[in-house]
Amino acid sequence: MVPERVYAAMSKPVVGHLDAYFFQVAEDVRNLLQTVFGTENAFTMAISGTGSAGMEAAVANFVEPGAKFAVLANGFFCDRISEMGKRYGGDLVRLEKPWGEAFSDQEAADFIRAQKPQVVGFVQAETSTGVFQASKAICDAAHEAGALVIADTVTSLGGMPVQIDANGIDIAYSCSQKGLSCPPGLAPITLSPRALEWLRARTTPRRTWYLDLKLLDEYYDGAHRYHHTAPISMFYGLREALVAIAEEGVENRWARHCRNHLALVAGFEAMGLRMLVAEGVRLWTLNTPRVPEGVDDLKVRKRLLAEHDIEVLGGFGPLAGKVFRVGLMGPLSSEDNVTMLLDAFEACLRAEGYQPPASGREAAQAFYAAQSQ
Amino acid sequence: MVPERVYAAMSKPVVGHLDAYFFQVAEDVRNLLQTVFGTENAFTMAISGTGSAGMEAAVANFVEPGAKFAVLANGFFCDRISEMGKRYGGDLVRLEKPWGEAFSDQEAADFIRAQKPQVVGFVQAETSTGVFQASKAICDAAHEAGALVIADTVTSLGGMPVQIDANGIDIAYSCSQKGLSCPPGLAPITLSPRALEWLRARTTPRRTWYLDLKLLDEYYDGAHRYHHTAPISMFYGLREALVAIAEEGVENRWARHCRNHLALVAGFEAMGLRMLVAEGVRLWTLNTPRVPEGVDDLKVRKRLLAEHDIEVLGGFGPLAGKVFRVGLMGPLSSEDNVTMLLDAFEACLRAEGYQPPASGREAAQAFYAAQSQ
Repeated sequence: MVPERVYAAMSKPVVGHLDAYFFQVAEDVRNLLQTVFGTENAFTMAISGTGSAGMEAAVANFVEPGAKFAVLANGFFCDRISEMGKRYGGDLVRLEKPWGEAFSDQEAADFIRAQKPQVVGFVQAETSTGVFQASKAICDAAHEAGALVIADTVTSLGGMPVQIDANGIDIAYSCSQKGLSCPPGLAPITLSPRALEWLRARTTPRRTWYLDLKLLDEYYDGAHRYHHTAPISMFYGLREALVAIAEEGVENRWARHCRNHLALVAGFEAMGLRMLVAEGVRLWTLNTPRVPEGVDDLKVRKRLLAEHDIEVLGGFGPLAGKVFRVGLMGPLSSEDNVTMLLDAFEACLRAEGYQPPASGREAAQAFYAAQSQ
Repeated sequence: MVPERVYAAMSKPVVGHLDAYFFQVAEDVRNLLQTVFGTENAFTMAISGTGSAGMEAAVANFVEPGAKFAVLANGFFCDRISEMGKRYGGDLVRLEKPWGEAFSDQEAADFIRAQKPQVVGFVQAETSTGVFQASKAICDAAHEAGALVIADTVTSLGGMPVQIDANGIDIAYSCSQKGLSCPPGLAPITLSPRALEWLRARTTPRRTWYLDLKLLDEYYDGAHRYHHTAPISMFYGLREALVAIAEEGVENRWARHCRNHLALVAGFEAMGLRMLVAEGVRLWTLNTPRVPEGVDDLKVRKRLLAEHDIEVLGGFGPLAGKVFRVGLMGPLSSEDNVTMLLDAFEACLRAEGYQPPASGREAAQAFYAAQSQ
């Protein structure tokens, strides 16, 4: 869901891509993104493509042909970054875990120490499973091994702390929709000084031109050397979305997402739905309750859409038919939405023959009441 | 300049990137783009990036490592496509011409026959010079040699006939701004059945994932297999811009661009400004009068912006200081704008010490009067 003010910003007249006003907008985007990313990285900008363009920019610029690229693989987007690593000639090694589980600090560190890669890739917020992957131990082990770390923050940025600097993440990318609540179309990206230094010193040929971060650095910084025509309206929208986040206060926003996530989980659990992901490593933005025994998830989801105008996604790959994927982010993450969603879920589950042992709404309300004391 | 209705369309609520409504919008975009491209190509779509992403998609998908890539080079964007060709491992060969000149049919055909490349690249509408490059002889010679042809139509699409099918162009890309008058953010692209067949049969590894046209084909066509999250709002905008073009009638639109371009040229010439580009190979969307002897083009352009709110670009590279680059496209291509522009130009030239021998406005008005008889 996109706030009206973001659409209004996108309707402002476009200026040229070398206009001083555009670079002022880009500067605002840089400063505001630094706050949500939790970083002081000077190279913090938005790529002119959607989230997967951010992923490809990270891989294309930092995984050189022949470089060992170690991926922690526990979901769909881990597979996508692996695929890109292969395409760019990386020597791919993977540590695999079942979808829905996070890597322990020890597992991640042991893998990286054993492999001694040049680049480590992981997904901090895995949209296919709802798993949040802790970053610090990965980054520490990678840095010990002299590796750069790429983190996918597509489903965490703006909805929960990604803490680039505190974790030591070198390269992170995200999307403009989801936690930032702007329409899709841009991919925020940030590079640590270490990553930027590495990039500037890279001597092997760079394949991609459109996503060449060295050229983008020269476009957005200092000389403003013409590279491509940026999608001006999307920058207007992203800036406005980030201003709205700054007004709410990014920490308040995270707290809101956390609170509503916990209330929703309390509701699901009261209705007898078990969460796929263990407590402590759940995303606040995307919830994955398991589909109860004997229930057809597609029928429930179709009913939710038809009768309640609520779109809930299903699992796919190894989780097909096994989980619901319930987004709760941006303006949608509110107490009203949580209780409305739980009521609708209960009605649809009942209609499909499942009898919840207790009311989800009441459990959520009890959670909110306890919180406000 | 973007019509208000396009901004209004971009403000409509976003839907999911796998929503049936989105694919309906994409279908409309396909059908409407076919008309402006002048093609029946089934693969006609918009890439989720700006014009240069379209260029990179064309090169990355069709220039295989080691393939001979013949570029007709007479401007800045010819150099860009050459650079991309090298990055993707193409064996680059170039036929060069001074900026501002077009290739004759004979020159182009001789070059292609001699080189026998796998892929030919050329820029139909060169933004850096104002040259329109005829396409038919290039495509005929390329097809004789068994080569595919890539055409850059960034500054022609929507403003003048690009005639993909009639010319035999295999791969063409453009941008959503300029002749289509939507904000920047998408790159229309079209592939001939021959190009599509070649793409599907390609066995060498494809580097780019985000711009992989085989994957995009599966996303937009038939199975709608998830690839990336498309910039939904930009698709709304592009569809509306194309609907506006359809309402005007694409041939009427071309005629309007042609008429106003000719009037503007008549005005410039009356003021004693010689055109860089020879008659017959001039773009209707971008005009390049030479800077008169003794005049500082930057001073004139700064004055135009400060006193008349008109942004005119300068030449660059070998044309720095030598030409003005005057865009006249979309809603801006109108009789009122032409006369207003000529008046402003005259005032600024006079202020910088140049005395036009005759009135540009009067020459333009005489042209319009002769046209309407």
